[in-house]
Amino acid sequence: MKITIIGLGLIGGSIAKDLRKSGFATEIRGVETLPENANAAVQLGLVDQSVSLEEGLRNSDLVIVSTPVDITLQILPVILDQIESFTTVTDMGSTKRVVTESVELHPRRRNYVPAHPMAGTENSGPEAALENLFQGKIAIVCDQEKSGPQHLALVEKMFYALGMNIAYMSSDEQDHSTAFVSHLPHAVAFALANAVQDKADRNIIFDLASGGFNSTVRLAKSSVSMWQPIFEQNSDYMKESLNVYIKHLEQFRDAIVNKDSPQLEKLITSANHIRGILDKQNPQLRKNEETIIKYYTR
Amino acid sequence: MKITIIGLGLIGGSIAKDLRKSGFATEIRGVETLPENANAAVQLGLVDQSVSLEEGLRNSDLVIVSTPVDITLQILPVILDQIESFTTVTDMGSTKRVVTESVELHPRRRNYVPAHPMAGTENSGPEAALENLFQGKIAIVCDQEKSGPQHLALVEKMFYALGMNIAYMSSDEQDHSTAFVSHLPHAVAFALANAVQDKADRNIIFDLASGGFNSTVRLAKSSVSMWQPIFEQNSDYMKESLNVYIKHLEQFRDAIVNKDSPQLEKLITSANHIRGILDKQNPQLRKNEETIIKYYTR
Repeated sequence: MKITIIGLGLIGGSIAKDLRKSGFATEIRGVETLPENANAAVQLGLVDQSVSLEEGLRNSDLVIVSTPVDITLQILPVILDQIESFTTVTDMGSTKRVVTESVELHPRRRNYVPAHPMAGTENSGPEAALENLFQGKIAIVCDQEKSGPQHLALVEKMFYALGMNIAYMSSDEQDHSTAFVSHLPHAVAFALANAVQDKADRNIIFDLASGGFNSTVRLAKSSVSMWQPIFEQNSDYMKESLNVYIKHLEQFRDAIVNKDSPQLEKLITSANHIRGILDKQNPQLRKNEETIIKYYTR
Repeated sequence: MKITIIGLGLIGGSIAKDLRKSGFATEIRGVETLPENANAAVQLGLVDQSVSLEEGLRNSDLVIVSTPVDITLQILPVILDQIESFTTVTDMGSTKRVVTESVELHPRRRNYVPAHPMAGTENSGPEAALENLFQGKIAIVCDQEKSGPQHLALVEKMFYALGMNIAYMSSDEQDHSTAFVSHLPHAVAFALANAVQDKADRNIIFDLASGGFNSTVRLAKSSVSMWQPIFEQNSDYMKESLNVYIKHLEQFRDAIVNKDSPQLEKLITSANHIRGILDKQNPQLRKNEETIIKYYTR
């Protein structure tokens, strides 16, 4: 199958690796505006060739858009304008409402399957591409009823080839959920990095930073070009998730300042319940459960 | 050397493993009030025998207190009352001001070396003990001028046997620094776990939780019996660190809500600087630097 990947960063590059290895792709063309990334992707063997957008849309079975979401918003209508009638288009962005609304009335809307694979690292660029990045993770497919069934089936098959499970929901539900489980943790880490760097004795602080700090702040290394547009496109739900979070922090602070032991104990014990929920995510454990991701669309 | 470890949890158990392996300890007695932990520690071979506090303080070269800090506060004066004149006492707690103040005027104050090894995991109990937990990490030694030089030298030698580097500072500086690099990240994670669990669609949220969320929230699994007294003993500096953090979160939220792109870009780019600082912590990189931890005490 002939695949075109638009945007050869961590996600696009990792998809290329696994789709080639699994035999899902027989030919991979890449579209990338940064010449150094384009060259690196060819030299690393991620793509067979680097081509222009126009050329990449010609005679392609599947077009995968893995650019920052502001770029996706710009180019998705252009892509739908130019594809062949049979071509399937999907995008890998972390926000979905704004992007899907922009092509809601496009005559080729049914060729498009909005998606979001919940996988990544804090690194970026084609050199950061990893094999098996998606293995065992969840891919969200949005508004499935608005895609043609063949296009939907092909994108589902692609995610299975990447080793993923699929969750189905509306674009609105996806943006709301990811505001809490993905975008909020990034904001938490960015603000933590800034708060700690705000302190005077930076040398002391960073000599002391241990595994706990590193783990909590890891996402603060994430790329500005990817995250700035995500936060802006999901600003309504980010406002909600950040306000809920700040409320919980203030509760925590007040319990500490007031040395309100029963309240502090309650807050920590309640937070500890996350252990049981996260351990459930262990794929070995999940195998034995009946509750593997199904259809959430209401 | 005869060592007594009071509190056989993750820290006490891990110290026992490495001090025995390195040959630093020839005999290890354990004092533990929870019978199941005491039995597990003996069965796992962490300690040679489980004894009463009174017996553990008899004829011991080095007493290591690795209990939650509220317990340390209770028993440290009792320990100093009962030790032999030659015995060295150190504690492994994460807060130091309140504990050191409580024995400031004790006639055996010079036998005591307040310390804090910056290492741990989110797990607890003797079963969670790990070999090499401390390797390459930093141990803080506080108020060194108040300890007898032989006692200081023995505790330094113990940390070197554990593979640690040592940072020296006052109890006040230690509580201030750890409020930012250790205690704040824990509060951040506890509040994040509570904020996300506050959401209605818990099933969706936890099916979607990916590596980024897990990393950021990992510390929220940490034990309430350990963390509640840490937050309370360090409440002044926790108030400061949480207020600084909430201020940065509010800045972040306002930039998102106002779609103030230049400000959001500035905040993310500033947070990204954490990458260079954290990468410096790589022991391989640090080896080539002249700036390895030295004496901070002013």
